[in-house]
Amino acid sequence: MPQNVVVVGAVALGPKAACRFKRLMPDAKVVMVDKDDLISYGGCGIPYFISGDVSDPAQLQETSFHMLRDKKFFREAKDIEVLTKTEALSIDRKKKRVLIHNLLTDEQKGLPYDKLVLATGSRPKRLDIPGVEMDGVLAVNNMNAAIAIKDRIATGQVEKALIIGGGFIGLEMAEALTDMWGIETTVVEITDQLLPGLISRNMAQIVKHHMEEKDVDFQLEERVERLEGKGKVEGAVTSRGTIDADLVIVAVGAEPNSDLARDAGLEISPRGGIVVNSKMQTSDPDIYAGGDCVEVTNLITGKPGYYPLGSMANRQGRIIGTNLAGGTAEFPGAVGSFVVKVFDLSVAAAGLSIDVARREGFDATSVLVIQFDRAHFYPEKDLMTLELVVERNTGRVLGIQGVGPMGDGTVGRINAVASILKYNPTAEDIGNLELAYSPPFSAAMDILNALGNTAENTLAGKNRILDVDEFDVLWKHRDKGDVVFLDCRGWGNAEPFVNKYPDHWKSIPQDELRARMAEVPKGKKLVLICNTGVRSYEAQVTLDEMDITNTCNLQGGVACLKKWGLDL
Amino acid sequence: MPQNVVVVGAVALGPKAACRFKRLMPDAKVVMVDKDDLISYGGCGIPYFISGDVSDPAQLQETSFHMLRDKKFFREAKDIEVLTKTEALSIDRKKKRVLIHNLLTDEQKGLPYDKLVLATGSRPKRLDIPGVEMDGVLAVNNMNAAIAIKDRIATGQVEKALIIGGGFIGLEMAEALTDMWGIETTVVEITDQLLPGLISRNMAQIVKHHMEEKDVDFQLEERVERLEGKGKVEGAVTSRGTIDADLVIVAVGAEPNSDLARDAGLEISPRGGIVVNSKMQTSDPDIYAGGDCVEVTNLITGKPGYYPLGSMANRQGRIIGTNLAGGTAEFPGAVGSFVVKVFDLSVAAAGLSIDVARREGFDATSVLVIQFDRAHFYPEKDLMTLELVVERNTGRVLGIQGVGPMGDGTVGRINAVASILKYNPTAEDIGNLELAYSPPFSAAMDILNALGNTAENTLAGKNRILDVDEFDVLWKHRDKGDVVFLDCRGWGNAEPFVNKYPDHWKSIPQDELRARMAEVPKGKKLVLICNTGVRSYEAQVTLDEMDITNTCNLQGGVACLKKWGLDL
Repeated sequence: MPQNVVVVGAVALGPKAACRFKRLMPDAKVVMVDKDDLISYGGCGIPYFISGDVSDPAQLQETSFHMLRDKKFFREAKDIEVLTKTEALSIDRKKKRVLIHNLLTDEQKGLPYDKLVLATGSRPKRLDIPGVEMDGVLAVNNMNAAIAIKDRIATGQVEKALIIGGGFIGLEMAEALTDMWGIETTVVEITDQLLPGLISRNMAQIVKHHMEEKDVDFQLEERVERLEGKGKVEGAVTSRGTIDADLVIVAVGAEPNSDLARDAGLEISPRGGIVVNSKMQTSDPDIYAGGDCVEVTNLITGKPGYYPLGSMANRQGRIIGTNLAGGTAEFPGAVGSFVVKVFDLSVAAAGLSIDVARREGFDATSVLVIQFDRAHFYPEKDLMTLELVVERNTGRVLGIQGVGPMGDGTVGRINAVASILKYNPTAEDIGNLELAYSPPFSAAMDILNALGNTAENTLAGKNRILDVDEFDVLWKHRDKGDVVFLDCRGWGNAEPFVNKYPDHWKSIPQDELRARMAEVPKGKKLVLICNTGVRSYEAQVTLDEMDITNTCNLQGGVACLKKWGLDL
Repeated sequence: MPQNVVVVGAVALGPKAACRFKRLMPDAKVVMVDKDDLISYGGCGIPYFISGDVSDPAQLQETSFHMLRDKKFFREAKDIEVLTKTEALSIDRKKKRVLIHNLLTDEQKGLPYDKLVLATGSRPKRLDIPGVEMDGVLAVNNMNAAIAIKDRIATGQVEKALIIGGGFIGLEMAEALTDMWGIETTVVEITDQLLPGLISRNMAQIVKHHMEEKDVDFQLEERVERLEGKGKVEGAVTSRGTIDADLVIVAVGAEPNSDLARDAGLEISPRGGIVVNSKMQTSDPDIYAGGDCVEVTNLITGKPGYYPLGSMANRQGRIIGTNLAGGTAEFPGAVGSFVVKVFDLSVAAAGLSIDVARREGFDATSVLVIQFDRAHFYPEKDLMTLELVVERNTGRVLGIQGVGPMGDGTVGRINAVASILKYNPTAEDIGNLELAYSPPFSAAMDILNALGNTAENTLAGKNRILDVDEFDVLWKHRDKGDVVFLDCRGWGNAEPFVNKYPDHWKSIPQDELRARMAEVPKGKKLVLICNTGVRSYEAQVTLDEMDITNTCNLQGGVACLKKWGLDL
């Protein structure tokens, strides 16, 4: 058993591994080193500190019972020695020593170990453009950076902000700046959607539309080419024009901090993550690594993936702690679950988005369902949108994404699927998920069951779907005259559209369709529309029976058009 | 392919099976018969109709797009004929005819079928005591009964209500009567806990305490022996005394309505449920059955179970519809997921409670964790309590139960576990569940992960636990002097207890324990206490190291004592 464990990095995984190990082997000696002075804080809370939801940085560093996790805490409550402001410079794997450098005293010394844990975390990806070194250009990678940003805002130095990058952090920061501080905020994203690689373009458009209603400005497919100012940043020049900003937040992603490991000759992936086995051991079995500095297996693709998340770090930390004490715990790999609050929406996902699934070589399709989050007769309810990504031949579920109201409903559905993804479920399994039911919590046929059923119907060719972005194209070209938009709702819902677009929008309520079959326009493609896509699917089935098969069913119906921002 | 399908019962499973079948085989003929006039309603919404949350009974019968699911709806929108006020009297399986009786015209006729679906539902179990036939004694098994109860309340005829039975319906009705109508309500339950067989006694006590704070009165371990009154009920005589009541709601459970099937010679289980295979076929392959009238396999025990729930009926209905059309869909069995709103609490579960697990012969134990439902530094948060039931030798998860604030957080955690129960997960799998993380939704180490870890520690013998009810016994007998209650929290938390109980309550904060080891009382059993059970576990580990092992860790700590109603 190792009696001497050194842990490099004391934010998330490091403390977790150290504490777990000490609980299993109380008489062992553990030393943690960190080059920062603030340790063991909830880095994911930074946007809420900046917004003001969390008033004091110390709150992010406290236990739930209000003890500050500082050096004293680790010494007294955990019997763990912490060396802050101490950088690990190199590892001598033969002599099993870490060379450390005290940044305050400038002293160096060798720290012997039986087992070493690398918890060196991540660093923000750098933007290689002129001007990034100016005052007012910041990343939100650690507490000290966060404090600097908040100080600047709280002292009235920020009127206009530019956020570079439309991923989680970019969106969380956009909300923090506009919602609580009223700062005019523009997000520039280089791809054609928000949360690229994480959700579909249609889902991303729902998020974007919501944020625009909250006064965040977005510029997609735009590249920031340089930042301008005189010492202090004043704006940016982009591929399309200029943007004024007295604060620029760079949120273009994170990359593993793996230099120490690389220099020590440990195996590093092409992406730069430390390579570990399922026991979280590096290529040197006496050195463990986990958290933001490693790659782990994506359970959907079987390939390495990168998941810099505090939750992942905590779970991996416990596994390392167990294994340091002679245990045989294994990390099963990841499906990339995430959730993010975006003003009044929650956005959550697990597994692959449709674009990523296709890029990974899957013959995949995705279906979308929009439905109330609880019984439709229950007074408090809201619409939720879920998308299921499935493999065509097998029905295998590759991923799920959701956008719904704030609260725990959307993430709860995602977690139910995230939990089973490693068992390779099919659409049928999702249709049969036994979710707890009661009207204040769900519908008798929960949206998740409906999603599985819809995927089955789509894979079976019974439900031939049209996505909102495809609808958008057809609608814009409606004067070509080859498409009729057939409204399957009651006349009350259809009437305003028929009056406004008499040449394009027809009304035959689904329950009158059998009787009014003669009125169905012939020889044109029919786009079937209802509120959510349920009645239009019924209409499609009925039309199929009459051999009218050149139809498609608008997924999510008018409800989805509205959320997407298409106001016909 | 069957061209002629008869469905007996038109509430939940019947319409679902009929509609799914018609979508797959639009040219087939389907007739549904129901002895009631109201059909296709959300029966689980009845308590919310009685409370007034749902104002009009029609709302329970509407689709989410406000179409009333009546005979006309089924005829026009679904091409399905419905015969209401029509009872199915018998089945001639040889001739494949159902004899039906029109309750309005008193006519009888034979209805031929190729395939028959039995969706005869359940009926409330009857209480076999004197007086149950009186006016004012009602069950809440169907819409007409619900309307009768609400009419009675709304016209001021009810001041005091007695509810017999502390299961879901009893508790939902207790809330409906007290919260919205201010009716003095007493719930009498024959066992020693609420929700018997569904959650542990400790969880049930948390629910009871909450409802008592909302002015519901409970009498446990009490039997109603007779009801009294002159035509109209005025009260009850119980095993312990008398209770005044001008409304008595009998909610002692439901039983399958399987007489029609039994009379036709179909296989019926000892409990009275229609026996079906995984395709939902009865012992006659031309007759399907599902919903509240059948039994299905419990996936934990492998034995038949009875789950009269609208969600179950809907999923089974779709499977029957698929199979009627020549498909091969299978119902996988059930884990008994449920959720119920109880005033400001949500109570949810899946799988077996600890008592049921032991009764079923498992060598089981359960662990309880109380933790914030999101990051402890996030401003809006609340405590959630989860209990995991695990098999000792294998670590197999047998069930999970939760009590938390209203909202979707608790049911979301339960659903994540419900979804994987059929894959036989272990405590380690729960510890590693990849739940989506962000501070507004969860902690970095979510309560569910913490629950899995706690179960592992307990199974490994590292965490030796004490349940609140066991604490209650030790505390009541504290003057025996063989137990010391050691408070591991900071002095500020411990001080009032030490001052109040100087002979029994000692304070050594966990982070001072190593330094103050000499103060630990010797030769007595130590009950270790903190706010939630986390620091007391750390203290137990530290004491173990010092060979002080006669300790136990109060599960859920002082937070759980408070929720339980133990005010020391």
